[in-house]
Amino acid sequence: MNQHHFTPTHYYNTLGSHAPVLRVAPGDRIVTTTVDAHGIDAQRRQVTPPGNPMTGPFYVEGAQPGDTLVVHIERITPNRSYGWSGTFLAPNVVDPDFVAGLPWPPKGERRYAEWTVDAAAGTATLVSPQGALGALKLPSAPMLGCFGVAPADGEAISTATSAQHGGNMDYRGFCAGVTVYFPVLVPGALFCLGDGHAVQGAGEIVGTGIEISCEVAFTLDLQKGRRIEWPRGETATHIFTAGNARPLDQALQHATTEMARWLQTEYGLDPITAQMLMGMAVEYEVGNVFDPAYTMICKLAKRWLPAQAQTWILRESRFVEEASQ
Amino acid sequence: MNQHHFTPTHYYNTLGSHAPVLRVAPGDRIVTTTVDAHGIDAQRRQVTPPGNPMTGPFYVEGAQPGDTLVVHIERITPNRSYGWSGTFLAPNVVDPDFVAGLPWPPKGERRYAEWTVDAAAGTATLVSPQGALGALKLPSAPMLGCFGVAPADGEAISTATSAQHGGNMDYRGFCAGVTVYFPVLVPGALFCLGDGHAVQGAGEIVGTGIEISCEVAFTLDLQKGRRIEWPRGETATHIFTAGNARPLDQALQHATTEMARWLQTEYGLDPITAQMLMGMAVEYEVGNVFDPAYTMICKLAKRWLPAQAQTWILRESRFVEEASQ
Amino acid sequence: MNQHHFTPTHYYNTLGSHAPVLRVAPGDRIVTTTVDAHGIDAQRRQVTPPGNPMTGPFYVEGAQPGDTLVVHIERITPNRSYGWSGTFLAPNVVDPDFVAGLPWPPKGERRYAEWTVDAAAGTATLVSPQGALGALKLPSAPMLGCFGVAPADGEAISTATSAQHGGNMDYRGFCAGVTVYFPVLVPGALFCLGDGHAVQGAGEIVGTGIEISCEVAFTLDLQKGRRIEWPRGETATHIFTAGNARPLDQALQHATTEMARWLQTEYGLDPITAQMLMGMAVEYEVGNVFDPAYTMICKLAKRWLPAQAQTWILRESRFVEEASQ
Amino acid sequence: MNQHHFTPTHYYNTLGSHAPVLRVAPGDRIVTTTVDAHGIDAQRRQVTPPGNPMTGPFYVEGAQPGDTLVVHIERITPNRSYGWSGTFLAPNVVDPDFVAGLPWPPKGERRYAEWTVDAAAGTATLVSPQGALGALKLPSAPMLGCFGVAPADGEAISTATSAQHGGNMDYRGFCAGVTVYFPVLVPGALFCLGDGHAVQGAGEIVGTGIEISCEVAFTLDLQKGRRIEWPRGETATHIFTAGNARPLDQALQHATTEMARWLQTEYGLDPITAQMLMGMAVEYEVGNVFDPAYTMICKLAKRWLPAQAQTWILRESRFVEEASQ
Repeated sequence: MNQHHFTPTHYYNTLGSHAPVLRVAPGDRIVTTTVDAHGIDAQRRQVTPPGNPMTGPFYVEGAQPGDTLVVHIERITPNRSYGWSGTFLAPNVVDPDFVAGLPWPPKGERRYAEWTVDAAAGTATLVSPQGALGALKLPSAPMLGCFGVAPADGEAISTATSAQHGGNMDYRGFCAGVTVYFPVLVPGALFCLGDGHAVQGAGEIVGTGIEISCEVAFTLDLQKGRRIEWPRGETATHIFTAGNARPLDQALQHATTEMARWLQTEYGLDPITAQMLMGMAVEYEVGNVFDPAYTMICKLAKRWLPAQAQTWILRESRFVEEASQ
Repeated sequence: MNQHHFTPTHYYNTLGSHAPVLRVAPGDRIVTTTVDAHGIDAQRRQVTPPGNPMTGPFYVEGAQPGDTLVVHIERITPNRSYGWSGTFLAPNVVDPDFVAGLPWPPKGERRYAEWTVDAAAGTATLVSPQGALGALKLPSAPMLGCFGVAPADGEAISTATSAQHGGNMDYRGFCAGVTVYFPVLVPGALFCLGDGHAVQGAGEIVGTGIEISCEVAFTLDLQKGRRIEWPRGETATHIFTAGNARPLDQALQHATTEMARWLQTEYGLDPITAQMLMGMAVEYEVGNVFDPAYTMICKLAKRWLPAQAQTWILRESRFVEEASQ
Repeated sequence: MNQHHFTPTHYYNTLGSHAPVLRVAPGDRIVTTTVDAHGIDAQRRQVTPPGNPMTGPFYVEGAQPGDTLVVHIERITPNRSYGWSGTFLAPNVVDPDFVAGLPWPPKGERRYAEWTVDAAAGTATLVSPQGALGALKLPSAPMLGCFGVAPADGEAISTATSAQHGGNMDYRGFCAGVTVYFPVLVPGALFCLGDGHAVQGAGEIVGTGIEISCEVAFTLDLQKGRRIEWPRGETATHIFTAGNARPLDQALQHATTEMARWLQTEYGLDPITAQMLMGMAVEYEVGNVFDPAYTMICKLAKRWLPAQAQTWILRESRFVEEASQ
Repeated sequence: MNQHHFTPTHYYNTLGSHAPVLRVAPGDRIVTTTVDAHGIDAQRRQVTPPGNPMTGPFYVEGAQPGDTLVVHIERITPNRSYGWSGTFLAPNVVDPDFVAGLPWPPKGERRYAEWTVDAAAGTATLVSPQGALGALKLPSAPMLGCFGVAPADGEAISTATSAQHGGNMDYRGFCAGVTVYFPVLVPGALFCLGDGHAVQGAGEIVGTGIEISCEVAFTLDLQKGRRIEWPRGETATHIFTAGNARPLDQALQHATTEMARWLQTEYGLDPITAQMLMGMAVEYEVGNVFDPAYTMICKLAKRWLPAQAQTWILRESRFVEEASQ
């Protein structure tokens, strides 16, 4: 296993078949940085145009369509104290007749809240605008809003949205400790990441989290010949699938179908057992309901699953903890 | 506070302005029974036609449109050991091209799984059909699938669906310990309940939970002059709202809007504070995605809310614990 | 065949199992009046509360669940000159970020446009507010916004919405000359009608047509043993089906499925032929996209269909033209 | 005005910033050919991979983001007799519980119907499979299923779907005689076209039209400084807008909003007049309900519009008829 410290010099606003910035072997560990959704870096310099600029793509040697890319997120650390967020509910998440009453800023203005993020203390504190709750202090829970692989068939898809290749899913579970699986759709997989949030509620319903630049440590690995259709993930206690579409019903259909496929093809459950179990034990979490495609997560506790099905799961020993943190 | 032990003799398959079976005072406690979704009681007798038959309606003295009915669920106890559930995913929760591959029973047949529910042990154990997981044993978590008040304007709405009056929401959080708020839409509120589930996954994605008859203990109370638009609820740690509609996006809009209204009108938060807080702290849970109307829950931890806003919250002292349990 | 001139004395705001106002034999012809959506009659008196008050229900002798009710609309004549309509697009039919820019009236006000309807001339002329197009004059095309039968299982459904029993579909094709089929869901069918529009664009996207009271002449007939799932209809040139649901996608699914069933069960088309034909020849029209349930129409030209399948179609000779018009 | 006869040598399966195959001046006329959706040409040779391969892109001199591209379709002529189509309804356009009963081919097979298209006679005749309607003969109505410009921000979007740049809209109104407006999103606009259908029902509900290769004659023109958000179009009698999204409700929102903008900004209608007129006069047509994004068309008859607003409309004199047809 190699370790790479990669400093990005340019960024992409699409997930697509761009020239890789680094070639890595399966199992390699990468430490790099991401700019925030506006393209602003750790020094608060705008270094690239806004719109979820991506660090990468990273080319994984040997990855071919039909394989699965394994991304283990080890650490997401905000690398500046300044964070910003939206100040009112997105018009698409409230009743249509409530929209006119949202606290819109004056015509032509865009207004953001400002937060101070203390990575060491694990907090985000509201600086402005302060209202009824004053300097509201929230526990930080850093996550990646947007990451994934290059889509198939020559597509280059905006980092504003998401699909089977991943993308802008804005799911709070994409945080340190999670292992995420993406279908490899082009040679090398071409993994990219960015759009760090220090804090975010479910649904990203004000259109942002607390947006921030980050240092991210992660491992890329490869599962040859494992075919998946949608992003999947795993924590210490759960497996989960992500469906990306509108309406939310369709995102839920994708995630639910992918979970049924997973249980039936990799855990050896007959269809009736798989589906009965899902009916009694599945949980759903909402990723975003703001972007062009919404994200729904279908989760299942590992305690209900046969242990022998773990053949595809990344060996834990692969994940070395960073020495100097 | 009075206590009522009510034994139902007939049931309704709609929530509507039916003749009340019992008149109670605000604060009264009721212990009663519910039949299962097929109309089968504790002795496994079919005592009424299927389709979520309701126990009730209970008339609350003094309740008028514009008030809020408070339902504190104290206890839901399965009163028989036999439970049944669906055996495959509902066709509307999977990708359309996956539907033909579901484990449909032969044409014309309907098949159910059978479970043994042990209320004392708090378990539900699969009897048949047994597949890869054998006699799967799940912890029971009894809940009410369907409950609510009579709708306004002379409507009588099937207990297959839900709307602003409540109904068939199939949310796992409607369990012992929760306090639920319904808008009063007709004099007396006309509260009904039924459709107990011993266990249910989120979404009720096989079309049922583990369906069972129950004994239920609850308290009904009244908040004069408190107007709400959608069912709301409260646990020790969270407040929540329920939106009922299709698609799920619209259910989410209703629940999100109701939460914004709640924070702004009862917790004294200015709109920007209320909405920023929601953006960073809200959680969503899926009730059902099976019924004609889907249910989405919007939750917020009480820890973020001003303490002084609790004026509308039911006094805890009102809830007496049942002596003999 | 009998003829009935029925003058309503009371109205209902739900479609449900209300006491019938008149009992008729299959084939009978009825001439009656309807008030407008606000409950205002030909003399501009408010005679009943607003919300699409219904004339009826009419009990058809011999109608039983499992039969089909045939409604032939012979004539819809506005019986006053005053019509009113909405003045801006409903917030649910435009992009969420466009909603705040709609021409909302000042808070707390509701504003309607006023039109003069000339039934003899067949025109509707804008009185106020007059803007860039002055006294806009449109050809009138009277239609019934809301009509249908009582739903099954004791439901009483608001005339604000629609479902399999019909209801507030707001389809422009429900005009003079059309024959409409409803599933009979309760004994006697209990047909009701109202909510006349002198003019309406597709979708009813300002929330109203030009709302008006009307005189309506129609025939009710019965097809014993013909089972249908959703409202169907027929003109000189087309057959059509109506699906009612949200989102519009689901309304379209209902209408499309009902058309496939129709072709396969009554026109004797094998499934592949029926579905290929639909793929190449079907047309869609939007009923309303304003009400709680949206309406989608699936149409097919009769020229593509086998002539021998007309067994279920009402004999034209049944429809006598009104002598004095 | 120049005329170009362009013979394609390669095709693209995305709309994106590919190297242009031809540079033309505003007003130029192009005659070219398109292969069918499977990449099969006039000689029934598979010349490129399937998936709506595009002829183009054509670079229009002077086109810049913020301008509007004008595409006048003069002629679409099937250039072979062999056409193919789907044989059963797409599972997403019928009720979920109807899907299992669709006439699916045996597992692993894909089956297409075969048609003989007679461009001179203007007919398409079913060859196989023949069922209850035998050799069904339909009038041909050639249209372009997929055409549009390159999207902004470096995206390359699959020709399976559609968005603001156009794409796979499958609207029957994109036929000879129509003028279509696209927003220019990249320098040169980079117009592409393909996916000809000899016949197609609304919604493309079997997933295809009668798919065929074509010769297409069209004119490209430019409107400097005219900003539009979604594709628009114009016939002799109507103007229309196209919205592309899922669910269909959102596609309708886009199309309706674009029509309101059009009336208010280019026809000089005050918002209330524009929106009242739309409410009473708008029509909707369904493009496709099969692709990842659905397409809804919002139409308005020109007879209701002020004549002086035609400043942006392409001068008719620009369109020369082809001499030898």
